[in-house]
Amino acid sequence: MVLTIRFCLLFVFIVVAGVLNLFGQSSGLQKGLATYYGDKFQGRKTANGELFCQTRLTAAHRTLPFNTWVKVTNLKNLRAVVVRINDRGPFVRGRIIDLSKRAAFEIGLLQDGNAKVQVEVVDHPQAEEQLLKYAPALAPHQLFRIPPVKATPSF
Amino acid sequence: MVLTIRFCLLFVFIVVAGVLNLFGQSSGLQKGLATYYGDKFQGRKTANGELFCQTRLTAAHRTLPFNTWVKVTNLKNLRAVVVRINDRGPFVRGRIIDLSKRAAFEIGLLQDGNAKVQVEVVDHPQAEEQLLKYAPALAPHQLFRIPPVKATPSF
Repeated sequence: MVLTIRFCLLFVFIVVAGVLNLFGQSSGLQKGLATYYGDKFQGRKTANGELFCQTRLTAAHRTLPFNTWVKVTNLKNLRAVVVRINDRGPFVRGRIIDLSKRAAFEIGLLQDGNAKVQVEVVDHPQAEEQLLKYAPALAPHQLFRIPPVKATPSF
Repeated sequence: MVLTIRFCLLFVFIVVAGVLNLFGQSSGLQKGLATYYGDKFQGRKTANGELFCQTRLTAAHRTLPFNTWVKVTNLKNLRAVVVRINDRGPFVRGRIIDLSKRAAFEIGLLQDGNAKVQVEVVDHPQAEEQLLKYAPALAPHQLFRIPPVKATPSF
């Protein structure tokens, strides 16, 4: 009898955990610490082969597919920016996203260097691939957001 | 008999048009010409009462609710940027969105001054309102993205 109850509880636990996990994945929502990277990595290769440019709106994430667009909201001031994932990291426990310097500036993260944020997927890479039919004459390196390394203007 | 057929055709037309319109609205997708505005409007009030800042990632749209986030893709090079609607316009036939100078720069629109773009809603204003519980101690003017007028750094 006790065993049956235990099995029932275990079953309920597994189902609930599964459902919660499903919802968590489908909403694509994550909360945790954001940091940023800039000068030291300027011009170096990112994990997807682009050249890192700290003035562009990009970020490093451990698992999301490259070219996923995520909205990062600073939970201290609710300022938000939408960035494109083009790198892997951060590889420090407790941190969930590493923003480019410009993206960090947009949500007021430069002074403290880190902040608790909400990360939410707003667009998937497939969306851009579907658009390729609009630019058949361009070579791959002319497409999407391969950022130039030279400094961007200050406006 | 002819009248019945005409009514049938009219009915089918109305249903099809309704369904297409529904899909159009739900996907939130628009294609058309984008332009940009900058220096002349720097520091002036936008339609939602913020101060316009050409270095921020914002845009003017005729109908979308303020604080809607839209992904604007330049169909010539497929570069994209996600901006927040905080102003009304453009009031010129054929143009669908007016970007801040910085947003226009991000998708390579500065040289030509305009480009055919795709505009896609990626996040609705309600999402930010739900976040208010995270910052109960802040005054409204400290929240979200009320942009400063002073120049932003060049990185």
